[in-house]
Amino acid sequence: SIMFQQAIRSDVGPAFLRAMNSEEATYLRTCRLDVESPQNLLHVLGTSLEANLDRCAPPGSKFFSVKCTPDVQYSISPPPLETSHLSPVPLRGNSKLLISMSRASQYENDNKLSVRYYGEKKEVLGTARMYLTGFEISLDVDADRDGVVEKNNPNKGSWKWGPDGHGAILLVNCDSERIYAKTPDNEQNSISRVSDLKDMSVMVLRTRGPAKLPQGYKLAMHISQGDAESIRVFRPRSAEVLNKTPVTLLFNYFVKDYPLVLSSDVLTQEVPYLGGISEMNFYVEGLRFLDKDFDGLISINLSVLEPITAGLPETPIFTDKVMFRVAPWIMTPNTLEPVEVFVCSTSDNYQFLKGMRSLVAKSGYKLKICHEYMNRGDRWMQDELEFGYIDSPHHRFPVVLDSPRDGKLQDFPYKELLGPDFGYVTREPENKNVSSLDSFGNLEVSPPVTVNGRNYPLGRILIGVAFPTATRGRNMTKVVQEFLWAQKVQEPVALFSDWLYVGHIDEFMTFVPAPDRKGFRLLLASPDAAYKLFRSLQSDGHGKAKLFEGLKDEKTVTVDEILNNDGLRAQNNYVQSCIDWNRDVLKRELGLEDDDIIDLPILFKFIQAGNEPVFRAVAYYPDMVNMIVLGKNLGIPKPFGPLVNGCCALEAKMSSLMEGLGLCCYFIDDFASYHKLHGEVHCGSNVLRKMYDFKWWNLDM
Amino acid sequence: SIMFQQAIRSDVGPAFLRAMNSEEATYLRTCRLDVESPQNLLHVLGTSLEANLDRCAPPGSKFFSVKCTPDVQYSISPPPLETSHLSPVPLRGNSKLLISMSRASQYENDNKLSVRYYGEKKEVLGTARMYLTGFEISLDVDADRDGVVEKNNPNKGSWKWGPDGHGAILLVNCDSERIYAKTPDNEQNSISRVSDLKDMSVMVLRTRGPAKLPQGYKLAMHISQGDAESIRVFRPRSAEVLNKTPVTLLFNYFVKDYPLVLSSDVLTQEVPYLGGISEMNFYVEGLRFLDKDFDGLISINLSVLEPITAGLPETPIFTDKVMFRVAPWIMTPNTLEPVEVFVCSTSDNYQFLKGMRSLVAKSGYKLKICHEYMNRGDRWMQDELEFGYIDSPHHRFPVVLDSPRDGKLQDFPYKELLGPDFGYVTREPENKNVSSLDSFGNLEVSPPVTVNGRNYPLGRILIGVAFPTATRGRNMTKVVQEFLWAQKVQEPVALFSDWLYVGHIDEFMTFVPAPDRKGFRLLLASPDAAYKLFRSLQSDGHGKAKLFEGLKDEKTVTVDEILNNDGLRAQNNYVQSCIDWNRDVLKRELGLEDDDIIDLPILFKFIQAGNEPVFRAVAYYPDMVNMIVLGKNLGIPKPFGPLVNGCCALEAKMSSLMEGLGLCCYFIDDFASYHKLHGEVHCGSNVLRKMYDFKWWNLDM
Repeated sequence: SIMFQQAIRSDVGPAFLRAMNSEEATYLRTCRLDVESPQNLLHVLGTSLEANLDRCAPPGSKFFSVKCTPDVQYSISPPPLETSHLSPVPLRGNSKLLISMSRASQYENDNKLSVRYYGEKKEVLGTARMYLTGFEISLDVDADRDGVVEKNNPNKGSWKWGPDGHGAILLVNCDSERIYAKTPDNEQNSISRVSDLKDMSVMVLRTRGPAKLPQGYKLAMHISQGDAESIRVFRPRSAEVLNKTPVTLLFNYFVKDYPLVLSSDVLTQEVPYLGGISEMNFYVEGLRFLDKDFDGLISINLSVLEPITAGLPETPIFTDKVMFRVAPWIMTPNTLEPVEVFVCSTSDNYQFLKGMRSLVAKSGYKLKICHEYMNRGDRWMQDELEFGYIDSPHHRFPVVLDSPRDGKLQDFPYKELLGPDFGYVTREPENKNVSSLDSFGNLEVSPPVTVNGRNYPLGRILIGVAFPTATRGRNMTKVVQEFLWAQKVQEPVALFSDWLYVGHIDEFMTFVPAPDRKGFRLLLASPDAAYKLFRSLQSDGHGKAKLFEGLKDEKTVTVDEILNNDGLRAQNNYVQSCIDWNRDVLKRELGLEDDDIIDLPILFKFIQAGNEPVFRAVAYYPDMVNMIVLGKNLGIPKPFGPLVNGCCALEAKMSSLMEGLGLCCYFIDDFASYHKLHGEVHCGSNVLRKMYDFKWWNLDM
Repeated sequence: SIMFQQAIRSDVGPAFLRAMNSEEATYLRTCRLDVESPQNLLHVLGTSLEANLDRCAPPGSKFFSVKCTPDVQYSISPPPLETSHLSPVPLRGNSKLLISMSRASQYENDNKLSVRYYGEKKEVLGTARMYLTGFEISLDVDADRDGVVEKNNPNKGSWKWGPDGHGAILLVNCDSERIYAKTPDNEQNSISRVSDLKDMSVMVLRTRGPAKLPQGYKLAMHISQGDAESIRVFRPRSAEVLNKTPVTLLFNYFVKDYPLVLSSDVLTQEVPYLGGISEMNFYVEGLRFLDKDFDGLISINLSVLEPITAGLPETPIFTDKVMFRVAPWIMTPNTLEPVEVFVCSTSDNYQFLKGMRSLVAKSGYKLKICHEYMNRGDRWMQDELEFGYIDSPHHRFPVVLDSPRDGKLQDFPYKELLGPDFGYVTREPENKNVSSLDSFGNLEVSPPVTVNGRNYPLGRILIGVAFPTATRGRNMTKVVQEFLWAQKVQEPVALFSDWLYVGHIDEFMTFVPAPDRKGFRLLLASPDAAYKLFRSLQSDGHGKAKLFEGLKDEKTVTVDEILNNDGLRAQNNYVQSCIDWNRDVLKRELGLEDDDIIDLPILFKFIQAGNEPVFRAVAYYPDMVNMIVLGKNLGIPKPFGPLVNGCCALEAKMSSLMEGLGLCCYFIDDFASYHKLHGEVHCGSNVLRKMYDFKWWNLDM
């Protein structure tokens, strides 16, 4: 097989190729008639040849006649007045011949058409002969998205969203078939195992024609330089051999037998013509995710090349094109069923782990513990990674988005999660300048919503940033934001989280499933709701009830003391206004009404951020909204609120709010090992969830 | 005025701002009711405040009542059963108050609303008071594209193509107000002359309210980091001063008095509130053209900021947004009327210049000669630059695209063309690796066409490249191609020109005006047409007629010799197939029929390209298709064809073909000084043409 390095080849725009696309009504190709020497032409079925009859006529030509073999059809334009085709037709300056064929040839040049020219007195002046080889060709993909590569789908060259849409789909091959010495498969340019083929999209080259193409004709597959950054194409070395070989093959055998056809180093390559009626599989591998500079669409072309002579480039006489879209990375909301729960084990979190173990077991899911040799004391399982998945009609698998945060947990996603059918993706800011807002407690996703008539059946991504008007402020890093926005199918909403010391949106909001309304409730932390609760406790005579009772190293505080603390009240008024600002955005961007939102009684307090003259908020007692949602069971930070008749008033309030939704509250003691470090249950856990049934390509975009 | 350097600020996606856009049906803002301390609020007219009545109610509250001043309106949700508003209404958990105002305030806090809470027995438990300042604000642009900034256009925040579209337009300020020491104005970050303002888009901030905003409230204008690469915003230092100052101002005065508001260094800045009913102009300057990484859309935001306290960021309580699109660079086809013709004067082109002078004078246009001190012997005026223009409702001017070719003419576009109302743009490939295909004889544009029902009222750009299947080959450089495709309004078509030694599409095609059909004809070089003509000369007994007669240093050749030269015939068969390939693309991509195309009798021959084993084509005799089109007059390379009865058979054929279109052929002798150097009349000239009447924003895209 021939392999060229393309010297100068830049991106050619769409017009060049579209000009030759089989989607156009009829593909017309101008050809020459030559009285002096007969011509041999390969003719692609489904197209037409057009010859100007006058341009090459011998001098003095006044009439012409046309003859051809049965598989060749022709028509004359303008149509001759006489009906008998055998009698000579008057030649005009604009006389044209349109030629097509109805069947693929069995042998090279087995069809023929000739044009005879006559003078004034119908004397023969010359004959132009054309030998034709009929040939059928089609590069095929799964354009109708049913998991099977159909034949010559008329829409294969374009891509359209929606249930009545079309266009093939490509996965980024970001899992690792190897379990040891693993790297994502898209980072190695060979196929290591047979199982790797299922992560790729099959493309079939179907041809029908003689055993060999006429002398010098070739088939070439080609892509643009731009697209070559995003895909690779492999093929079996020999289709015949592989059809006879069992599917279980040895490692080395595979690499050898699936050579690379196209890559960023090879933009065009000849592909073999197998002769007769044949099908040849190709495997297309996605290399990179949608991003600011990549909309996900890529095209692969297959051209028929006509030979000229040594030193001259072959002419592409026909090009078939297929289009793919790379699947987006999709996040899973709290309303999807869990598969596995992840937490860290540290030297000091026994109490928390015990609570989580019990909750997860009771809920019936798997618990995966990341041990200390791997987490090195970093307990913030939520912050290091976000679970998502990629989906196509032929295959789907989970993909972890690794945060640029890179705490001591940083090896976990790559070393523990990446594997067969478990993909990995990350985005590293150039300057490594990340802030606390780059932790993925600051990256969440809503359940499916409808907003002013627009459906988001996969929900919307939520992130926290600084106000756009802030002259100082922390933000989620640009490369991660660009990645999230580029996925498009869960259009992100930016919230304001820079008012928080840690700065994560999961400190003031979460979603829980609900049997009614939109299928969920938005829970928001609310200092006003907390003050309302405490004032009613006070007016019911419980002003002396104490928070933080029974906690070692923590001073208790009474309801009266909280209500009398004017500074705390002012701080919480500000917090409430920040949360209200987000509440307004969430209502607008998720199409929520007040009845879709539940205020949870949570207080905050200010602490100084480093040496800056800036104060930011942390939870005053364990932040109940920072919970883990496992189906109908909620794992909630135990608030250690005021005890009324031996019962925590905060737990009681929380339970009563959730009870109406059929949800069970499990309060987990995270005080010493998480709350005191400014995190809670949600920050310290992560949940791999089932993927959506809804297919992203059915979105109306 | 305050100016901050924004430390960490990345691009925030659209949702953040859209959430606050005035386009949304009603902008709702959650506010707090506080029984303990009265609140002062600035209220933006046209929005609503929403307060939860229950959240801050004193313990034991069962009823409430609302009172307000006349300019304040409120409604209660759910609506109370009793109709009298004065009697206390039962308080529910979801009781809400919606507050709005009907008029801007005359004084700070001159309006008031209070909510009184009652217990079981209608005893008063507390009162929440709110002092309100009504305020009107609108950031305005010319969203209806009539050259005037209207007030608060409901569509100002978005952009839509077409005659029923909307959205403001921005020019790249790429001309130079200065004639000496000139640089494009977009490369200097100050306003140098009053005339510079007319290259910018006016934006008006209209406000109505009290003389001063309540304590701590501010207005801030802001843009995203991404948009800041593409625009700058200026404002008059003091609106009052300028209203009293005559428009003609001195240089220094201007720089000082139009300070920069926003730029890539300053993403957000406070703008003054002038009080009462006021309008303040801002000037928006476009900095860069559409390109691969820039779709031309930019947004400018104006937010009202509410104070919190020192160390805490102010809260944007309302944001108004306007959107601009940067005007594309537009090329002008041969069918538009010329304004000025450009040629070079060299030591050896007296004959050519004489012909051009005569033609241009006869046609009634201006001739501009680039003298030798500037061209340094480089005569290829077509290749160094392409004329185009940019257009907006408020202003339009020509813009020269400077080719990366950079021959000895390279200083001409910058030094001679750039100036007041004459813009300049260029694209430099990173590696300076340019080929002959980067000369702008390889960049042309069609007249307006309609293709399968799609209109291109500005025509389509045409460029020449190598086949996408070619493993070696020259191409137009990536950065120029990306620039051309990004302009979008004249969607490019790529032709195959690498078969030519020089490699420019103007060697085989041009357009001339026509009174019928589509208003133009495509002229194509055609070796077959040449052979047909020569054969008919031969059969008429003129086989001994000679080409190149009377030319010094050029051997003559007879018609018979040409027809007997089998090698030349084979070369021209290949050339015809290359041109036919382009003919097929042009027919498809410009929606042409054969009757829209005229074949011109032109022969080519092969020469070897450097030391490569590659042969490429040059014109055998002066290439008549490489002409200059000046209205109905065509300046055509004098072909020096076979003389029949003292008359050149090629000139006669050419004239007869053009005559029917009402066009006059003027044959210009460019043999020694252009043809022998592989160029012709078109290569050696350039034409600045009138701009289209059609407005690009009226395209249906």
